[in-house]
Amino acid sequence: MKIYGDTKSGNCYKVELVCNLLNIDHEWIDVDILAGGTKSDEFLKKNPNGKIPLLELDSGETLSESNAILNYLASGSDLYPHGGLAQAHVLQWQFFEQYSHEPFIAVARFINKYLGLPAEKADEYAAKQTGGHKALQVMEQQLTRTPFLTGENFTTADISLYAYTHVADEGGFDLEAYPAVRAWLDRVAALPNFRKPQNELERTNMTAYVCRFKNL
Amino acid sequence: MKIYGDTKSGNCYKVELVCNLLNIDHEWIDVDILAGGTKSDEFLKKNPNGKIPLLELDSGETLSESNAILNYLASGSDLYPHGGLAQAHVLQWQFFEQYSHEPFIAVARFINKYLGLPAEKADEYAAKQTGGHKALQVMEQQLTRTPFLTGENFTTADISLYAYTHVADEGGFDLEAYPAVRAWLDRVAALPNFRKPQNELERTNMTAYVCRFKNL
Ligand SMILES: N[C@@H](CCC(=O)N[C@@H](CS)C(=O)NCC(=O)O)C(=O)O
Ligand SMILES: N[C@@H](CCC(=O)N[C@@H](CS)C(=O)NCC(=O)O)C(=O)O
Repeated sequence: MKIYGDTKSGNCYKVELVCNLLNIDHEWIDVDILAGGTKSDEFLKKNPNGKIPLLELDSGETLSESNAILNYLASGSDLYPHGGLAQAHVLQWQFFEQYSHEPFIAVARFINKYLGLPAEKADEYAAKQTGGHKALQVMEQQLTRTPFLTGENFTTADISLYAYTHVADEGGFDLEAYPAVRAWLDRVAALPNFRKPQNELERTNMTAYVCRFKNL
Repeated sequence: MKIYGDTKSGNCYKVELVCNLLNIDHEWIDVDILAGGTKSDEFLKKNPNGKIPLLELDSGETLSESNAILNYLASGSDLYPHGGLAQAHVLQWQFFEQYSHEPFIAVARFINKYLGLPAEKADEYAAKQTGGHKALQVMEQQLTRTPFLTGENFTTADISLYAYTHVADEGGFDLEAYPAVRAWLDRVAALPNFRKPQNELERTNMTAYVCRFKNL
């Protein structure tokens, strides 16, 4: 199978992490967003939404959306409950991530770290802080009760939320007030097969947030 | 089971629609967002994220996020493939909805229909138009090839995208250029068990978009 991604993108980070955790063999194909790699005719044929990450199976079939890819790759493993309410709770946290977490925390990080918090972005930044802290509080409440987001077990929901939470400080989010979130970040990083994605190692940090910004 | 919702909310609409399609017996509990119903201590105990729709099972367990609820309620029916790539494609379209569709089309509709497109919102509105048309084009491409979003069969992915697409015109989106999308809207509305949610019937339209606006 092939994974199209950019080692500097937060959403691609998730996919790299699940591949590391489950030792999933794959060919990684670098797509340079800033050079127009997601907008080429060839790529748009594979994903008409023009976004990475993208999974391409040996059959030629494709799958987009980071969280959908995570669940597909983890199906049959302990990381993705087979069905029922346990699986529904994984999805609940992943939709929470896309709707109530990533749009605040990733964007605040872009404004703070890459734009240098310019005056004309101050209101937007403040709104992102409010939303981001709300998301962190929701996570804190859950992680005070259970070691992982859906309960006793580490699942793809934790991978989805880990990606942007572990760099939330760069968006101006002080995690001091969230001891359960900090303990969970450590718990994830201490998992037996946890290996930092390439992402983390060679990150120049720019691309992911440029593309996030373009989405607004 | 109980469903906490507001018959005027687009995300609750999805849940009402799946209950109609599958004849799922439930108790509907009205939550008035503007009166603070999602922010009461009692409700926050059930959903710390303070949002509807929310499902509460007879066991007292809860599930939030409209798309997670849809899939849970439709599990075991033809509307939600059991696993594999077919299920992954349902999730792909639902994450697309939350990330690339709803934030543009629902917000454009709010700005246009409820704020009356004020001058200071013109730039934001234009950006929402661009994003919304991009999402519609992605849907159009798929629906030119297959009758439903994931292929031959109607699934919860279609319910998720139907909710806001069938009122996209109110956000200034002329569907003239999207014949396959229009044919799909008709195809969904002609399904044997399709009954318009209460939502549609008594909609005053305000609440959902006020709450959407608060999220920004
Ligand atoms: N909801 C998508 C978001 C993916 C996304 O936004 N990818 C960015 C990279 S971080 C991208 O490919 N952007 C290119 C573009 O939008 O032009 C997911 O979770 O996979
Ligand atoms: N991603 C959530 C969004 C739910 C949502 O935004 N619900 C709104 C009603 S349309 C709400 O309860 N807003 C109350 C608030 O945010 O205070 C879902 O799909 O269920």
